[in-house]
Amino acid sequence: MTPPYDANNIFAKILRGEIPSHKLFEDEETYAFMDVMPQGKGHCLAIIKAPFRNILDVDEASLSAVIKTTQKLARAVKAAFDADGVTVIQFNEPAAGQTVFHLHFHVIPRFDGVALRPHTGQMEDQNVLAENAEKIRQALGQQ
Amino acid sequence: MTPPYDANNIFAKILRGEIPSHKLFEDEETYAFMDVMPQGKGHCLAIIKAPFRNILDVDEASLSAVIKTTQKLARAVKAAFDADGVTVIQFNEPAAGQTVFHLHFHVIPRFDGVALRPHTGQMEDQNVLAENAEKIRQALGQQ
Repeated sequence: MTPPYDANNIFAKILRGEIPSHKLFEDEETYAFMDVMPQGKGHCLAIIKAPFRNILDVDEASLSAVIKTTQKLARAVKAAFDADGVTVIQFNEPAAGQTVFHLHFHVIPRFDGVALRPHTGQMEDQNVLAENAEKIRQALGQQ
Repeated sequence: MTPPYDANNIFAKILRGEIPSHKLFEDEETYAFMDVMPQGKGHCLAIIKAPFRNILDVDEASLSAVIKTTQKLARAVKAAFDADGVTVIQFNEPAAGQTVFHLHFHVIPRFDGVALRPHTGQMEDQNVLAENAEKIRQALGQQ
């Protein structure tokens, strides 16, 4: 069984505006913003607005909505950073590496010969996040 | 720009029945089967039938279809192996680790304290794949 949704998770707080985020995109069902502990330059996240824990409990319509936003981000980061590729990852439960229990897809631009950084827990500089967010928003605007 | 689709990739051959696979699930738009070089016990794949290279070129309806099948697999492998979690990964272009250029989502059951194996290029024993496939098909049948 998937544990119940806990509304005190950090992404729920971001959606409620209780915690700031570098917003990239929003529609009725989804929200996208920068990962503050990026595993690579331009690492961002697509999340569902509805309260789902992960892929195990999300409904079909919400899953379609969030993967559509994930695709938008993938195309945008590739263009924004002239990336060579994009890694999309989605973790379910702690054994898989999930640390925030609100459904999210990681979208990470990839560059030839550059490995992903581990999850260090190190916060990226806010100016760097703001600058990368602006590049992604511009690329989203050109889709 | 995303390179054009190449119909000689191994997943296209599996879809055409030119190469065998341990089939798990099939519907009008998608197909699911065992990864023959698993990074963990029960590692399987959801693919689209239509000729798309990855998330960068796939159309919206096809993307929704394949993520729906990915979800089915995620729920099934968790049940089939009593897994603690599930990792979903989708690679785009060689810089991200994509080696077969036909859109696919990796679905990997995860167990507390067990790291993913690297892509060694080592084929899993066919009997092990067949046995794990049967467990997943049974779990899919109970959804």
